[in-house]
Parts: sequence; C-alpha cells; structure tokens
Amino acid sequence: MATATATATKKFVYSFGGGVAEGKADMKALLGGKGANLAEMSMLGIPVPPGFTITTEVCAEYYKNDRHIPEDVIPQIVEGIAKVEALVGKKLGDPADPLLVSVRSGAALSMPGMMNTILNLGLTDESVEGLAAKTNNPRFAYDSYRRFIDMFGSTAMGLEHELFEHALSAMKTERGVKLDTELTADDLKELVIRYKAIYRAHTSPSHDFPQDPKDQLMKAINAVFNSWMGKKAREYRRIEKIEGLLGTAVNVQAMVFGNMGNNSGTGVAFTRDPNTGENVFYGDYLINAQGEDVVAGIRTPEPISRLQEEMPQVYDQLLAIREKLERHYKDMQDIEFTVQEGVLYMLQTRNGKRTGTAAVRIAVEMAREGLIDHQTAVQRVSPDSLNHLLLPRLDPKAKERPVARGIAASPGAAAGKVVFSAEDAVHLHDVHPSDPILLVRKETSPEDVAGMNLARGILTSTGGKASHAAVVARGWGKPCVVGCDALVIDEEAKQASIQGHIVREHDFITIDGTTGDVYIGKVPTVDPEMTGDFATLMEWADEYRTLKVRTNADTPRDARRAREFGAEGIGLCRTEHMFFEDQRIVDMRKMILADTTEARVKALNDLLPHQRADFIGLFEAMDGCPVTIRLLDPPLHEFLPHDDSGQLEVAKQLGIPVEKVRQRVAQLHEQNPMLGFRGCRLPILYPEIGDMQVRAIMEAAIDCAKRGVSVHPEIMIPLIGTVEELKILKERAQALCEQLLSEAGLSIPYLIGTMIEVPRAALTADEVATEAEFFSFGTNDLTQMTLGLSRDDITLFMPTYLEKKIYKIDPFQSIDIAGVGQLIEMGVRKGRQTRPNLKIGICGEHGGDPDSVAFCQSVGMDYVSCSPFRVPLARLAAAQAALTNGGKVQRDK
Amino acid sequence: MATATATATKKFVYSFGGGVAEGKADMKALLGGKGANLAEMSMLGIPVPPGFTITTEVCAEYYKNDRHIPEDVIPQIVEGIAKVEALVGKKLGDPADPLLVSVRSGAALSMPGMMNTILNLGLTDESVEGLAAKTNNPRFAYDSYRRFIDMFGSTAMGLEHELFEHALSAMKTERGVKLDTELTADDLKELVIRYKAIYRAHTSPSHDFPQDPKDQLMKAINAVFNSWMGKKAREYRRIEKIEGLLGTAVNVQAMVFGNMGNNSGTGVAFTRDPNTGENVFYGDYLINAQGEDVVAGIRTPEPISRLQEEMPQVYDQLLAIREKLERHYKDMQDIEFTVQEGVLYMLQTRNGKRTGTAAVRIAVEMAREGLIDHQTAVQRVSPDSLNHLLLPRLDPKAKERPVARGIAASPGAAAGKVVFSAEDAVHLHDVHPSDPILLVRKETSPEDVAGMNLARGILTSTGGKASHAAVVARGWGKPCVVGCDALVIDEEAKQASIQGHIVREHDFITIDGTTGDVYIGKVPTVDPEMTGDFATLMEWADEYRTLKVRTNADTPRDARRAREFGAEGIGLCRTEHMFFEDQRIVDMRKMILADTTEARVKALNDLLPHQRADFIGLFEAMDGCPVTIRLLDPPLHEFLPHDDSGQLEVAKQLGIPVEKVRQRVAQLHEQNPMLGFRGCRLPILYPEIGDMQVRAIMEAAIDCAKRGVSVHPEIMIPLIGTVEELKILKERAQALCEQLLSEAGLSIPYLIGTMIEVPRAALTADEVATEAEFFSFGTNDLTQMTLGLSRDDITLFMPTYLEKKIYKIDPFQSIDIAGVGQLIEMGVRKGRQTRPNLKIGICGEHGGDPDSVAFCQSVGMDYVSCSPFRVPLARLAAAQAALTNGGKVQRDK
Repeated sequence: MATATATATKKFVYSFGGGVAEGKADMKALLGGKGANLAEMSMLGIPVPPGFTITTEVCAEYYKNDRHIPEDVIPQIVEGIAKVEALVGKKLGDPADPLLVSVRSGAALSMPGMMNTILNLGLTDESVEGLAAKTNNPRFAYDSYRRFIDMFGSTAMGLEHELFEHALSAMKTERGVKLDTELTADDLKELVIRYKAIYRAHTSPSHDFPQDPKDQLMKAINAVFNSWMGKKAREYRRIEKIEGLLGTAVNVQAMVFGNMGNNSGTGVAFTRDPNTGENVFYGDYLINAQGEDVVAGIRTPEPISRLQEEMPQVYDQLLAIREKLERHYKDMQDIEFTVQEGVLYMLQTRNGKRTGTAAVRIAVEMAREGLIDHQTAVQRVSPDSLNHLLLPRLDPKAKERPVARGIAASPGAAAGKVVFSAEDAVHLHDVHPSDPILLVRKETSPEDVAGMNLARGILTSTGGKASHAAVVARGWGKPCVVGCDALVIDEEAKQASIQGHIVREHDFITIDGTTGDVYIGKVPTVDPEMTGDFATLMEWADEYRTLKVRTNADTPRDARRAREFGAEGIGLCRTEHMFFEDQRIVDMRKMILADTTEARVKALNDLLPHQRADFIGLFEAMDGCPVTIRLLDPPLHEFLPHDDSGQLEVAKQLGIPVEKVRQRVAQLHEQNPMLGFRGCRLPILYPEIGDMQVRAIMEAAIDCAKRGVSVHPEIMIPLIGTVEELKILKERAQALCEQLLSEAGLSIPYLIGTMIEVPRAALTADEVATEAEFFSFGTNDLTQMTLGLSRDDITLFMPTYLEKKIYKIDPFQSIDIAGVGQLIEMGVRKGRQTRPNLKIGICGEHGGDPDSVAFCQSVGMDYVSCSPFRVPLARLAAAQAALTNGGKVQRDK
Repeated sequence: MATATATATKKFVYSFGGGVAEGKADMKALLGGKGANLAEMSMLGIPVPPGFTITTEVCAEYYKNDRHIPEDVIPQIVEGIAKVEALVGKKLGDPADPLLVSVRSGAALSMPGMMNTILNLGLTDESVEGLAAKTNNPRFAYDSYRRFIDMFGSTAMGLEHELFEHALSAMKTERGVKLDTELTADDLKELVIRYKAIYRAHTSPSHDFPQDPKDQLMKAINAVFNSWMGKKAREYRRIEKIEGLLGTAVNVQAMVFGNMGNNSGTGVAFTRDPNTGENVFYGDYLINAQGEDVVAGIRTPEPISRLQEEMPQVYDQLLAIREKLERHYKDMQDIEFTVQEGVLYMLQTRNGKRTGTAAVRIAVEMAREGLIDHQTAVQRVSPDSLNHLLLPRLDPKAKERPVARGIAASPGAAAGKVVFSAEDAVHLHDVHPSDPILLVRKETSPEDVAGMNLARGILTSTGGKASHAAVVARGWGKPCVVGCDALVIDEEAKQASIQGHIVREHDFITIDGTTGDVYIGKVPTVDPEMTGDFATLMEWADEYRTLKVRTNADTPRDARRAREFGAEGIGLCRTEHMFFEDQRIVDMRKMILADTTEARVKALNDLLPHQRADFIGLFEAMDGCPVTIRLLDPPLHEFLPHDDSGQLEVAKQLGIPVEKVRQRVAQLHEQNPMLGFRGCRLPILYPEIGDMQVRAIMEAAIDCAKRGVSVHPEIMIPLIGTVEELKILKERAQALCEQLLSEAGLSIPYLIGTMIEVPRAALTADEVATEAEFFSFGTNDLTQMTLGLSRDDITLFMPTYLEKKIYKIDPFQSIDIAGVGQLIEMGVRKGRQTRPNLKIGICGEHGGDPDSVAFCQSVGMDYVSCSPFRVPLARLAAAQAALTNGGKVQRDK
C-alpha cells in the first residue's frame, strides 16, 4: 500500500512505564493529553502502570487508508504489548495469569465522554479462570469479564448498551436483589453466558465473542479510531470549533485493581486544598475499592491523612510524588491513584480546578516558594475567579434547595424581605430602616432606581444579562437574578408564585446571583474574606499592566470604593442617575414640562446646585484622577410616570393640569426609545440642558481646584452619530468652560470628547476625531445597534441563540469581536489617523470582561472602565492581556 | 509689492460688447457665471450693453494684498472703462451726457443675494443735471441718483439701508402720498440732498458723497470684493459646502433703461413654454418700465406675442435671438431683455427652470430636432421631476389656502371624507363604496393596512418620511402627509382640530403629499397626463442603463402596474401584508396564540393555501422575471390588538380566555421592537413558520411552472446578523424545496439569500456570503441601526437636525453615503470576495431615490428595487448613473 510505504520508517507507538518513556508532556499533539502526561510521569520515575500510546498520526492514516490500521503499525503495537508484558511479568491471554489492559482514546484537546474506552481487555473464557484462581476471587474475575463483554460489545461492535443492562436487571430480579454487589460469583458467571449470547445474537454477521486477545485488541483500537468520526464527536468539535487536529491517540495500558483486598485501594487528591489554597495534601481514598465505587458514593471515603496510619509507606510515597509533581508541573495537581496489593500506581495527573480564593493563594504562595515567578502567578489566576473573593455568598454549609433558576445577572447572594415595587422598598425602608429588602419585579426602569438602591438584591421575571436591572445591579455590586420565567408576579395583590410556592410581600426569599438560583426563605450567607494574598497578586499584576483601569461610578461612595479596588479614574459617570432623588425629580419634571425656554432654564437652575454638589463629591473622591462625566443620556419620558395615578400626582406636585402631563408623555412616547430622542439629541434641541450640566461640572471643578483638589474633568457627549453634532455641542460647552475659567482666573485641564456607540460614529471616526478630544466606546449601545438587538428584549430568543451557538457567548457579556469588534478597531484606527494621541477607552459593561479587556488591549486602547466591583478583575485581565501581547500595545491588528 | 510684480504680465480684465468679447462661457471659474455668459452672448453678436469683468483671481489677490486691489490691475480697469465709453459713446462723469454703469458680483457658482450690486454708478451732483437734460426727464435722473446714493452708501460704505428708507418714508408722509411714484422730480431732488446729508453724517471718518466717478468705481469694486468674505456669504458657502473657489468676479457694465418712454420697455421670457414644454416663445413685457416694476406687480405685463404688434422689429430681433440661443446653448433659455429708446439689449440668459412635464417634452423634442442626442436628452431630465407626470395634483387654478403643513411623505393630492380609524374606513367603504376616504390618524400600524388601502390619502400627526404610513403610502403611490403637528385628534369623539378648525368624521379635507399642505374642504385635483414623449425618454434611458430596476410589490395588482412602468422583477415582496385580510388574520392569531408546535402547525396549514394563492398571482404577473419573497419580518405582537376591546374580540373569535390573549400580548411586548423578536429570529424559534412560507412559495412556483409560467423565485431571509442564522434556515428551506421539487419531478431555478440590514451582516458579509446566494440591502433598517435612528421617532428632532444641516438630507430619503454607504460598500466588497458572482440589490425606500441609485451603481450592485410608482424614476436615475460612470460599473471605489 502506498500509504504504508510512505510511512515505513516512522515511529507510531510510544511506550511508557518502568521509569522510562518514549514520549513526554509537550508531545500532546502526537500523543494526546492523556498519553503525554502518562509518559511524563513515567519518565519522572513515578509509578504508572506500563503501556503505550498509538499516535494521532495513525488515526489520520487510518482514515486515509479506508478505516484500516496501516500494515507497518501492527509490528510496533506487537512490540508495545511485548514491552508491557515484560514490565508486568504477565502475558496477554496467558490462561494462568493473564495481562489485562485498558484501551482508551485521548486527543490533544479534551473531549470528555465523546470517545470510547474499553477496560479489562485480555479476558477470555479461559483466562477468566486463571484470573479467578490467581486472585482467588472468582466474583472479581467474572464481574471484570462481564463488564468487558459489555464495553467491547457496545463500543467496538456498536451493540446497544441497554441490551446488557436489561440482562443485568433481569438477573437481579431473578435473584431478588437490588444491588449489583449482591450478585454472587456464580450469578456473574451465569451473566457472562447471557452476555455472550446477546453478543452473538446481535452482532452482524453473527459471531462469537472473540477469544483471541490480540484480535480483541485490534478491534478495540479500531473502535477508538472510529469513535473519532462518530456523530457525537464530530458534533462536539463543530460546536466547540475544534479544528486542525490529526485525530485521537490510543492508549493501551496494563490494568491495575484497587479492589484486591485490604492491601488495595484507590483515591483522588489535590496537592493543595482546592477550596482555600492552603498548602496541605487534600483528598480521599477507599480501601479495597475501584474508582467507580468512590463515584457511586456507596461507601464513605476516608480523608487522605488517615492513609498515613493504614498504609504508611504508600502515604510517604504519595507525599513524595505530590512534591515531585508540583515541582515538575509548577502548579497544583489533581491526581488519581490506585494501590494494588500494596503497590502504588498513579493513574492520572492534571492541573487541579480550584476556587478563586484558592487560585489567588496558590499563585502567590507558589511564587513565594520560588516555584513560579510573578508573571506566571499573574497569568495563573482566571480574572473571573476573583468574583469569588469580592462578594457575599451562600453559606456552603446551608442545606436549602433552590426552587427555581433564572439568569445569573450580578454575582453574590442576598436574602431579604420581598417588595414588589420600588415605592414599597422606600416605604419599608422608611418604617424599618434595618430590614433587608429584596426587590422583586417583572423588570426595572430608571424610575425604580431609588428602591433598587435600598434593596440587598434584585429579582426580575424578565430581562437578560444586559437588562436595566442587571446593569444597575452589577454597577452596584448588588446580587441580581433576572429572566426568572418561573416567577409570576401579581403586583396588585402584592404576591408572586414560584413553582407553586406563594410568596407574599415581606416574606423572605434568597437569591444567588452567581448561579441564578432562587430560594424560598432566608438562606444564611457568608461575607467574603479579602486576604493579603489578593492585594499582593494585584500589585504583581500592576507590574505588567499597560492599560489603565477606571470605574463606572455615579456617586462619591462608589468612586471611593472603586479607588480602594485600584481604579485610576472614572470612565463613566451617568448624570441621569442623579435626577431621581427627592426634590431633583420634581425639578427635572418641571424642566421637561416647561412650555418655554425660560421656564426650562428656571427648572434647570434649580437642579444646578445639586449637580454641582454631586460633581464636587466625585472630584474629591478622585483627587488626582480623570473623571469622565457623560451628559444626560436617556429619553426624557423615562423621567415621567406612565400610569394615570403617577401623572395625576405629578400634575398636583407641579400645579399644572393633568392633561398637560398626559400630552407631554404622549408627545415623548416612542416606538423604539433606544433609537429615539436621547443623548446628544436632547441638548441639540434644548441647549440649556447641556449648559446647566457643563456649568455644574466646571463650577465644581473650579470649587475643588481652589481648595487644592487636583481635578481632571472630561466632558463626554453621548450618542454622537455625526461630527456636526459634536461640533455644535463642543463649541458651546467650550465657550462656557472658558468663560467660567476666565471669571475664576484659573486654568484647569479639561477635555471634551464623545461616546462611540452609534455605528456611524465608528465608521466616521476620522471625522469625529477632528472635534473629539477623547473617545469612549459605549459597547452596550454599540452592540445593540450593530447586532440589531435590544438588550431589554432578548429574553425570548437569546437562550435559543446561545443553545444553537448562533452566539457562542452573550454579546452583552463579552464583545462580539467579529462584528462589534470590527467597528471598534475601525474607530480606534480612524480616530488616531486624525488625532494620533487621541485618548481612547471603553465604558460599556464589557470593560469588566476579561476577553473584552484583552481585545481592548489588542486594538490599542488607553483604558477600560468597569463597575467598582470588577476593577480588580479588569486589572488582572489587563495584566494578562499585556503579557500575552508581550507587554506591548499592538495598534496594528 | 511682491504680489503685484509676480502677476505683472497677467490679464485681469476681460471686456465684452459690440459683438466681440475677450472671455467666453466656459471661463466661469475665472469670470464667474454672469460674466462668462455676458461675454458669450456678446461674442455671438447678441446685443448686450458693453462692459468688462474683473477676474476672480483679482479677488484672491485682493485678500492676499490686505484688501487692496493690486496696483497693476488699475490700468486694466481704466482701459476697460475706456472701451465701454468708446462703444457707448458716452464718458464716465461727462456733465452733459454721463456714462452710467452697474457694478455686480458674480462667482463661478450662483450665490443668490449673498453679495453686492451697485447701479447707476457715475452720477454726481453735476452729471445728474446732464442726465436730466439729455433724457428730458428730471424725475428719472433724480430718482436714479437717490437710488445710487442709497446703494453705494449701504453696500460700499456699510451704512444702514434703513436710514435711507426712513428718509424716503418721511418725505412721502410730508407730501401726503403713499407710493414712491407719486413723488415729483422736485421731491426727489430734495431727497437727494437729504440722502447726501445722511451719507455725510454716518460715514466714518465723515466725508461727502464722492463726486469723482472713478473714485466711486474703485470703492464699488472694493465693496464687491469685501462682500465675498462678508458674514452672509461665508455662512452660505459653509452651509452649502462650497469650497475651492478663488473668489468673486466683478462685472462693470453700461446701464440701459427701459423706462425712457413708450419706445422703451423690459421683459422676461422662456424660449419654450416652461409648464408644458411646447416649442413656443413664452414670456411677458412692460412698456416704459424697469425690471423692478415687473417684479413689483403694480402694472400687469403683456404677453410677449403682443410685442409683435407694438415693436415688430424688436420682436423679430428677439425671435432670432431665441433661435440663436437655443442652437448655441442647446437647452431652453430663461432670458431678460430691456429696450431703451427702440434699441434691444439682452441682460441675461441662463437655462430655464421647468416642470417635469415640460422637461420631458423639451428633451425629447430637442433630440428629434437634432439639437441634442439621446444621451443628452436622458441626462437633461431630473428623475425627481418625473413625479409630476405620475400623480394626481391639486388643480393649479384652485384658490383654496392650506391651513397647515406637515411633512410631504408621498406625493400627489387627494381629497376625501375623514375617518379616524382603519375600521371606520372599512365601514364607510362597506356602506358607500364610492365615497373617497381620507384616513386621519396619529400614526398607522400594520393593523391599519386594510383601511389604508381603501383610503385615497393618509394624514398623520406624527411620524417622519420613513414612518409606517409614509412607507406604505409611497409603496402604493398614495398621497400622504405625516408629522402634521398642528393636527390634534380626539379619536373617541371622532373629531380633530387643525389650527382652530374643527374637523368631524366624514367632513372633507384635502392633502397635497407633494408639498405637505393640508386644506379644509374639497380642493379640486387634476389627473396626470402620460404623454408619448415620456415613454420615448424611458426607452432612450434603457439604452444606457446597466442596473436592473425591480419593484417592491406585495400584490399581483401592484406587480402588474410596476411592470407597466418597466419593472424587471420583484425585489421585495413583504409577506406579512398578506396576513391582515379577512380570515387570514384569525389564523395568524391562532398561530401566535398556539400553546404547542402542533397547534401552531395547524394554524399555519390554514394559512398555507392563501399564501400559495398570493404567490401564484405574483409569479403570473412577473412571468419570466425574478420574484424575491421575504419571509415574515415584523414582531408577532403587531398582529395582536393592544387594547382591551380588541383583545376581548380576539378571545371570542378564537374561543379562548381573554386572559390568555393578554398574557401573550404582554409576553411579546418589547421595549424596542425594531431590535427585538422579529425577522429570522422568528423561524429560528418557530421553524414551522418558515416551513409554511417556503412551502407556499415552492408549491406556487411548481403550480405555475406546470402551466408554462416562467418562475424565478428568490427566497429572502430577513434580519440576518450572523452566518449561523442563515445557515440553519437555509439548510431547512433548501431541504424542503428539494423535497417538493423532487416530488413534482420538476427542476426550477431558485435562490436563497438574505437581506443585509443589520450592520453586523455588512461587517461580516464575507462570512454571510458563504451561505447567501444573493444580498439585498434593506437600507431602511440599515439606516435605523447604523445611525441609531428609529424612523418612527424622528419627528421631534429631525426638523432641527435638517435645519442645522447635521444631516444635509433626511437619511431615510437618500442614503447616508458617509456612514451607511460605507457599510454597503463593505458588504458588496466582502460578499463578492467570497462569492464573485453574488447577485446584489437594494430594496429599501432608497431604491427610488436618484442619488441613492447612483450610489448603488457606483458600488457595483446588480439591481435596485423601489415602489411601483418610482420605477420610471429609478430607470432614468440608473441610466444617468451609468452615463456618469462612463457606462461602466465601478466596483472598486
């Protein structure tokens, strides 16, 4: 065969075991992940059952060769088996003391459960007797044999696994027992006969279960190769976009058994505590058991420390291996081991999963121990895992079960008394200020902000991760669950039902914004611990970071908190949130309902001192740092009530006819408010609104500057679509600023720039940059418009879209690089084309998403801005992005 | 001076008159439009008062030279004056018989009223007496002198024109007269004294009115140059984006007077009838009058034909000039002339404005006369002017005055009985089928379509040019006025008020969709005339056109009409419009309210035969042409009533609890439906909806094909944002089509493609094209998303935006080339990168806009599609675009 000839001199089979190996850890592409790590352990002198790996190249050849293993591979397999036989001292098919092997798949990337595994290969009618005799355990021998027939039949021959399951169930019924373990050796011997009959009856062409172990082996290897192109595996690769792999490797390895008496056992362990990160050996084991017994949970495993008493030698050996693996892999390991008749075998090692707390502690301690350097420590911790460190969470010891699950919108747990409206929250807070409040709504709107602010947590029945409730809650670091379909609210009756549970006003419920779970009643929560390791890691991160990290904050309190977390300025202050409190909303409404410019100016003048005071507070909290303030953005109707009673109240409050309120609401009503009369369109029509805000900013800056506060105001004009809008508004703002500064006799550095959130602004960024002194990408709106997705309206179809992988990830969570990313890249490039030193950042929700931060770094932004609680996460993500990019900002993609 | 030296040998002054000229028509950049045409006429031997033009280069030098005319220009001006004196036989400042001149600006591009003009220059205290004596008309002489002082003072010296006006008014009051003409020569002589006093008092430094005509002339020339940088002129150039001009030229020309007795006169004429285009001499004149008397309208002018009797020689001379000008300029001319004491002078010629009807007739007849070729005829007619030929319009003889003006949304005029709801329209039509109906609404929605269809015209108080009412009305060629703020509707009381007029149900009103005017009562309308010339011009256009022109049509009737207008296929059939009639809406609602897939499928099966029948009708009407059918696009809630009574009715009709209807409406409610659950998102969630529509299309195609109809169905999937959506839906549609064709044993060519209307689809067009077999740019939605503008919500701010020139033109009317255009260009380029022969068209409202058609040609589209009534317009625009691009499609911009 041409193929065979072409590959005649190649090495296809890599042996391992006995302290040596032909492969090693960095040969994953050729040997698969499992094979490479087994080789590596063997080479390190760690005891692994001997075996060999057939390379992924053979898999490729197998398919080129019309699903036949090339001829010249066979001798290498035979040689591999011979080596295993030599090391183990048993022979495949030896009737007296047979070598048994496992045959497992293993590609370069993990594809859990997608491909085939066959255990106990080598058993035949003859050798099963030998095994029974040799082990003095016929029950074990026949149980192993019947499992082998099942696995071989269903994976290598494509029989239905259920056929064997049914036979097993039937046997148990006949014997009047419930558990497999209650079947005797004779029962299992009988079952082997029935299994073989099933095998014969259902294979096509019909044949007996193969009694030649070499034949078994070749068929098993074929089966593993076949599973590579199985429907499940192909589908998995398509969905996960796994491409460019040659195929799967095949690992053939001597079987070891932990269930051969009290000098045998099996266990799993972590080299450090995966929950706390503490440098202790952590794990469980079971005496006289196999791995599946641990999983089945029939017997309770013992803590690993007990092994010191039961098998002191094995324990010492394990401690040494633990040490060796950590020194070698330089990371915490998750290991599996089996003790067969007093002999320890390692079956697996891999980097262990861990909590965020543990991740930070392990990284910092390993660096201090000299195992890794600072850079590696910084790269070792997933930014998302930091959430764990920053938020209250459900007490892990709590036993309550959730009644429903919504979308996890803002992490952390909160328990509180249910209220069904923002007003009720305010009322409850007035009467019982210390009661914890949980706001439960269909959806929230800016009118609910006061009530939302008082609540410990927010639960809505609609909305997605980027709904108003979710965005506001994340901004405040407040737990929030949205889109909880199971929740049906009767607002008038002030009660709700969740999966049959009726929840009345002031009943307790608990939400877990990290998982989306909803609980009836009060589940205890625990506060996060902020350890010194965390601060250390952040310092190390800052050694490598080049992107600045700012925060989105609307209040001095948020600003201060963000600064504690390391924020280097405010990237987005949403001024509209300041208009909902107390007297301000009255003045705001006066302004909106004004008939004349004069009346509007008068109402605005009443708002001015409040805004000025807000900005003074922000400037003070951010002394020395830039503060970007966005001018009023939402449509005006958001400040007016839409219901009759609310409108009546406003009319009374303002002393005007209700009809007028109604008319104005109707006039301001919009089909698609997101694309309506908002953002810069407001001051284009009503320049006095912009004037008031600019004046408040500059007067606050002057007030602070006079008192020695270092202020760097950046005035940001939202929703620009054309340079003309920016030009008109910038000229006016600049004139006012210059006038105020000249009156004060001061010089304060300030910038006037714009959000880039309308696609047209990105497309024409070269023009926009002729006026803009900075760009801030508002990726929430940019995503809405570029993808044609209203973030408030995606609940109906986004789950299906994610399930069908139309979007691999919610585009409001992580920047859609292929689409929105193109516009951002274009905006940065064109903007800097006009103004090479243009300051550019991002202030959408994406500023706190690690992948998005990496993208921002790659296109050459100067900073990201995110909610206070995500600042540490962004710092870490930025450091990692800088390290990935070699510490250099890559401006040319 | 350096400047003077550098330009020493240059020609700065170009003389004309006496049958010769130094300049000519194609020297507009140097001589300005007026100067170039005066030179041209002079050269043609047409009598023009002699004069000279100071070039635009001098204007540029003037500014470089710190607002001084370069020294070496002065001798050329002196020489120019000498030539004029020689030709006229009078001398500037001659006390006995002075030469008088006018001094006028004239840039290369017309800037009407932006710059200065001074008449009667050369009059002094001395020469005014000579003029009085020579003309034997002291009144004329002093009136000329006082006008000169006024013009010179206000334009050359910057005095307030009002100072002189007040003196004139005071004099009339003193004399107890009302009209200027009632003042005597002595009165005017006294007025000259007062004017000179004003001049002395207000000039700074104070000085007497200049008595040296050369001094007057140089000051006047300076004044014209200064006006080039005047605030008005600069602003005008900024707004109109006029750039790159050197400056203005100055025209100095001998004055002629038409008010020197009954052998004098003045007139304006067109070389052909500007209303009908008929080849007759058309115009008016006044004996013993000046141009301003014609404008003032004090005396009624005589038709030009009467001149034949009054001044037969002059008339013959004019006829000869008319002939000469048309032969020379090869277009209909608009001319001004003056007869001074029996001698004819031409003062101006330029291409004449004309109606659409006239434009077509003139172009075709001039081509037949051999004056121009077909290509020129095609390029001569503005596509927009064709509207005139295709729609009913208000009788020009009607005397009614409009009471309000809204936005002209769909041209043509309609009078009808007012109804305030679509149901009332249906009801009125049921009872009195022949009554003309005018639908008056706040806004319209797809539920109103049946009533809209019955109405002669539609008037809404809100919405812009791209609102639902406007789009539907334009599609049907139905007159429509939207955004009429003055209209306040009380729907319950069934009455409206417009500027104080109360309009009750069934009262008549009339709208003019061409102007936006609204009239109380019934204003007579006239039907359009479709002449043979029009058809001829269209044929000539098709000789040059390379873009195909299709139509947006939802019914066989529209399709047939469009084909009569020359449509070459359907570019967009909106299937949702088919779901509102009769039983269909019931089935549609059943489908939407279905609890299970089965129930949904059942309702869809009931809709299937209707859809199939619709498509059969379309395929038959478009036999041989491609028919693009868009799958269901709008959000489902548009098919459900939003009011209580409507929901109750649906509940009754469908036999389900009203609560269920309410719940579903609430569930489908969206904040921003434009960006919500619509388009391809519907069949992604409910594949059975797409199945039904695809089946209806293909079954209809099969039915037609069997009967010998040539069908070319193109299935269009809307709102694609990712290639994954298209892939899922295309695979399913293709499988169904193939199954149906195979069952029928037929092979029918069909395509499956997509709208490009979400910005992301354009950005990732290379990916989308891996699946799409054609692209159709949906520029309505693409504009909405790219510009962040909801077309239903722009009424509040778009007028201000247009006024401030933030948008030079409504982006829903003409493609925003700088923004949306970039995405289109990118979409075309990337799409063809993947699939070089990708068929690409446009089906937004822009397909009927000439500038947009030109853009589509320039980016290399294959076709445009527009509403039936705009098909001729698109054909002409496409021909012109092809000719502008040299007949070649330019794919690389």
